Amino acid sequence: MSKPVTVTQAAAMLSAADRVLILTHQFPDGDTLGSGFALCRALRALGKQAQVVCSDPIPEKYDYMFEELPVQDFEPAFICAVDVADAALLGEGLLPYADQVELCIDHHASHREYERQLLLDATMGATAMLILQVMEQMGVTVDSAMADCLYTGIATDTGCFKYSNVTPLAHRMAAQLIEAGAHSESINRAMFDIKSRARLALEQLALSSITYYYRDRCAVMVITEDMMETTGATENDMEGLSPLPRQIEGVWVGLTLRRKDDGNYKVSVRTGNHADAAQICGLLGGGGHARAAGCTLSGTVEEVTEQLLKAVATAVPRITT
Amino acid sequence: MSKPVTVTQAAAMLSAADRVLILTHQFPDGDTLGSGFALCRALRALGKQAQVVCSDPIPEKYDYMFEELPVQDFEPAFICAVDVADAALLGEGLLPYADQVELCIDHHASHREYERQLLLDATMGATAMLILQVMEQMGVTVDSAMADCLYTGIATDTGCFKYSNVTPLAHRMAAQLIEAGAHSESINRAMFDIKSRARLALEQLALSSITYYYRDRCAVMVITEDMMETTGATENDMEGLSPLPRQIEGVWVGLTLRRKDDGNYKVSVRTGNHADAAQICGLLGGGGHARAAGCTLSGTVEEVTEQLLKAVATAVPRITT
Repeated sequence: MSKPVTVTQAAAMLSAADRVLILTHQFPDGDTLGSGFALCRALRALGKQAQVVCSDPIPEKYDYMFEELPVQDFEPAFICAVDVADAALLGEGLLPYADQVELCIDHHASHREYERQLLLDATMGATAMLILQVMEQMGVTVDSAMADCLYTGIATDTGCFKYSNVTPLAHRMAAQLIEAGAHSESINRAMFDIKSRARLALEQLALSSITYYYRDRCAVMVITEDMMETTGATENDMEGLSPLPRQIEGVWVGLTLRRKDDGNYKVSVRTGNHADAAQICGLLGGGGHARAAGCTLSGTVEEVTEQLLKAVATAVPRITT
Repeated sequence: MSKPVTVTQAAAMLSAADRVLILTHQFPDGDTLGSGFALCRALRALGKQAQVVCSDPIPEKYDYMFEELPVQDFEPAFICAVDVADAALLGEGLLPYADQVELCIDHHASHREYERQLLLDATMGATAMLILQVMEQMGVTVDSAMADCLYTGIATDTGCFKYSNVTPLAHRMAAQLIEAGAHSESINRAMFDIKSRARLALEQLALSSITYYYRDRCAVMVITEDMMETTGATENDMEGLSPLPRQIEGVWVGLTLRRKDDGNYKVSVRTGNHADAAQICGLLGGGGHARAAGCTLSGTVEEVTEQLLKAVATAVPRITT
């Protein structure tokens, strides 16, 4: 069992620490990276050694987060995980640290405890919001680079202030971060707007693959290796595809299936206010948030789809009527 | 020449007025309608008669703005235009009022004066932000329905807090409006996420039509009547298509051409920070904002494209090198 801590307690722990290794989750996104690099910059501003690590390569579009931030090599004395909801999400490269995590800062309601101390607040739309509070408690002045990192975390995890997890606090923090120098426009352009031509082509193929179930209230999109090859799309072109099926008029549950190298399917579930994505994935050994969750399933695409449709019907009985 | 007025002066004028007719612009969007219906509700809350009018039908997705707001029929004693940057934008149905507008509240830098008094602030991302300030000066308590209208105006005109026109004030007002009861999630879902299947099909056809110029820095998308017919898309499915060409990696200027019933082309110009859309459209008798502007051109699609490419080269000489 982890010991729950407050923002003030987490700040005190970090203020007392040095040689801090910051762990982010695999398939890194804007929130885990923004949280990690903001915290890293804050700790260095206080004269400490700190370094962010990730088991996967960091997509190029996040490069601005660690510009002019030289890599520091040290024997860690304090290990802190950010936005890592489950030890398994550390990924292979960081798994050896799983039982050495002193503090985890997270906002996932589905968090599975693995750390000694846990700062968890599921009312926060992004872990970056907790990091900002911790930084303020540590007496750090948020500079423009930190503001860019934190703004990225909040913007990406709230779908640019669009999702149900947006609170007045998220907006007020965004205002504060823009005042502190966050380059909101170029960040949003890079995170949400810009698509490579390969991505555009992939999106069109993926959309054509959609099949509908339960009187068109459930939409299933499948992304195959063929599509990736045909379009020349890379891993970086994949982000942001999973919300698409749910965006179709009348769809309650949007499912995106993607075959992984090991033959399993990575499944992403998105829902509106008629269905709980975490509940659906919970039935299949996965987890996440109410409107966005995931799981991994094995079998053929037909078998995986059947498993998913059953879970959808169990979690959302109304969808079948 | 219009007389410029402050928020306080505009509030005083409206507080002294009754039987207020509120004019919105043609092809109404979330900001003109949100501004109009919020102001209408505020004036009625103060015991006045007020009515919003528009020369075009209001798309269904904005229905929530005037639920339980019965139509009032009266002889106008005070005419106020909101978000109408030019008398021509009143549209045919409201043009007779053009020289009777007592007050206009607007945020377009390209505003062309036609009204007696003008409250103009181009630093505001949306006219709805000015309306909120005016309402506060009038002593109106913002209720949930007003908050929905104003939030819609801010969210739609800032691309859900994504564009360059977002300020800390826009975020703080969003926070305030959510606290006042704005249903931000369902509004954003309706405004930004949900696409009909016809719209999805239209989008795919439109994207396939894109041609590139100036070393792929300029992308031209053409929407034809054929595409509309093939997909069964309606006028309501058109909104939000024009940002697409600019969202392609490397594109500085995105142009969307659409043939109108009178044979002319309605052109929408979107730019990143390398080019000024209002400047490009200004060369062709149009106008708008720095990142989003429009104009109307006549000729064949080839002739219109040629005119546009020339204007782009004139306004953005670097694009040709």
